[in-house]
Amino acid sequence: MSAATVMTWSDLESWAATVLTRSGLRDHDAATVAASLMFAESRGIGTHGLIRLSTYVERITAGGINSAATVSIAADLKALTVLDADHAPGASSGMVAVALVIERAREFGVACAVARNANHFGASGYFTNQIADAGLLGLALCNTEPVMCAPSGGSPVLGTNPIAVALPIDRGERPQLDMATTTVSQGKLLVAQQADEAIPLGWAVDPAGRETTSASAGLAGALLPSGGPKGFGLAFAVDAILALGGANVSTDVAPLNGDPGTPQRLGHFFLAIRPDADGTLDDYRRRIMGLVQDIHSSGTPGATVRPLVPGEPELQRERAMNGVLAISGPALQAMESLASAWHVPLPAHAGPGVQPPRF
Amino acid sequence: MSAATVMTWSDLESWAATVLTRSGLRDHDAATVAASLMFAESRGIGTHGLIRLSTYVERITAGGINSAATVSIAADLKALTVLDADHAPGASSGMVAVALVIERAREFGVACAVARNANHFGASGYFTNQIADAGLLGLALCNTEPVMCAPSGGSPVLGTNPIAVALPIDRGERPQLDMATTTVSQGKLLVAQQADEAIPLGWAVDPAGRETTSASAGLAGALLPSGGPKGFGLAFAVDAILALGGANVSTDVAPLNGDPGTPQRLGHFFLAIRPDADGTLDDYRRRIMGLVQDIHSSGTPGATVRPLVPGEPELQRERAMNGVLAISGPALQAMESLASAWHVPLPAHAGPGVQPPRF
Repeated sequence: MSAATVMTWSDLESWAATVLTRSGLRDHDAATVAASLMFAESRGIGTHGLIRLSTYVERITAGGINSAATVSIAADLKALTVLDADHAPGASSGMVAVALVIERAREFGVACAVARNANHFGASGYFTNQIADAGLLGLALCNTEPVMCAPSGGSPVLGTNPIAVALPIDRGERPQLDMATTTVSQGKLLVAQQADEAIPLGWAVDPAGRETTSASAGLAGALLPSGGPKGFGLAFAVDAILALGGANVSTDVAPLNGDPGTPQRLGHFFLAIRPDADGTLDDYRRRIMGLVQDIHSSGTPGATVRPLVPGEPELQRERAMNGVLAISGPALQAMESLASAWHVPLPAHAGPGVQPPRF
Repeated sequence: MSAATVMTWSDLESWAATVLTRSGLRDHDAATVAASLMFAESRGIGTHGLIRLSTYVERITAGGINSAATVSIAADLKALTVLDADHAPGASSGMVAVALVIERAREFGVACAVARNANHFGASGYFTNQIADAGLLGLALCNTEPVMCAPSGGSPVLGTNPIAVALPIDRGERPQLDMATTTVSQGKLLVAQQADEAIPLGWAVDPAGRETTSASAGLAGALLPSGGPKGFGLAFAVDAILALGGANVSTDVAPLNGDPGTPQRLGHFFLAIRPDADGTLDDYRRRIMGLVQDIHSSGTPGATVRPLVPGEPELQRERAMNGVLAISGPALQAMESLASAWHVPLPAHAGPGVQPPRF
């Protein structure tokens, strides 16, 4: 097993952006996609980080991601905008939509945008945090190809359809939520499969639609919704909201890891709301931080771990990583392949003694 | 055990409205509250139906519900409105907010309203269905007094904080979602307690914050969030959205079954979005009904039960009840007490041979 290479986030972001530029993206798009991947890494969400870079590059070169895309406004109802993403890199059209909902929410109090003909945009939280940085509450939704079956089992019919919310409070203490509506992500099944471990009942069904403890059977079958009908209902609601802008529902979305020349044609939704309609942003912050305090002190007497607010585990990981990332094994090999193929040498090791924690 | 009395929905709605009028509500408010209670009954959600009438009447007479309330606009940012509900009956201020978001969404594409100083409004789905009837996608949120603990256990710190969504499709086939963010409602624990049955692990914790199979211990402790951190995160997000309008977070909400003279001071949130920004309502309906078909045919091969779309189980119950309700036991006794106290005789039995199904 090769030793981990430790690189700084900023070096990795520059490196990823250069690879994306060489593979065909415009500089601005490449920078946006690289920033979204490193956002995920910095929060400890490796499933949405650099591991996606190979897939993105493959889709850019094959045409599934349109490197010459023009994101356009298909309909404009003041506080509601419908965008045609023209198969742009997901993070790029996402940032166009984010800028729009920030501007419109300032004018109308609330604003939303639905984008159709969109591609995978990485971690939803990247976009909600941009909205929150602008002093607004941000919400983001998207769909994926079908991977979730109904609570009673069967074939996959809805995507992981995540829901993300971020609050307009300083990043250093910002509560936020970014959750798939499945019980667990496919990533957890992949990890169990590689380790040859059983998965708990309630995670997945096999191809015949029966609950399974086999990770391989679950990957061939479907993921179960979180909380049964509740997660299924939320995933359905995400599709229903995306369809308001003419976006495809999950069953019409092309898979991220399918033919790289086929655009995914999925949907994005972004919402921004002003927190200062009747009171200041400070008033809002005070109310929320009071609730955060109450949650911190709500734990079982004598317990050593205090209850955390949504987003706090990721914030703790971000602090612990302190600007560097350790990469090893297949992830490092994939990056070395990209470095070689696109003639962009990997960043230098961050230095002896720099050792980020493992999660 | 006394036999069930079978009454028509319309007779029951008139009866409830008359009781509410006699106890002090204005005619219009009484009709609105009665309609919201009977909506819940008609969908088979008895926990939010006539069983609440005694509590409402008690709160009206004690002043916790303000029978002379004036709902006012505290802030108006065009597509975002903040309302002060003035402790009106929850359903009444809810309908003021619903009318407002319908009107504003038609003008701006999307609109939302947050109400503070609000009271319990019954089933969230009552309001989302009004918005959907107007041809818009409707979403409703509210909070309650703390009943949910953090995923790791402890004392209650968030409400059941439900999420409801209804689609602008004919009521006879309308997909919709109305879910608490707890694993189950307190009502399920009450039923288990009365039947002296154990509850599954994952529903609740005891007062010391440990998972329990005792319904009594769970009722004295706290409900667990659905899907652990996911349900907790959603409930937190509901509070965060309500706080945008200056509404109290869960920890500052007075309990529905506490002192009837104390207003609950909870928050409501309503959102309406146009489905016809770029395409017709028929286009939207076609996309959604295609997904509904796909879900119906996604079941396990050979299974006798087909997967249902969110809202379909309630629709099936509504059809099966066919306009009448069977009431017996403590629920009937509570209604007989109200009938006697307010001199409003119960409706006549719907007739021999009329027997609705039991759920």
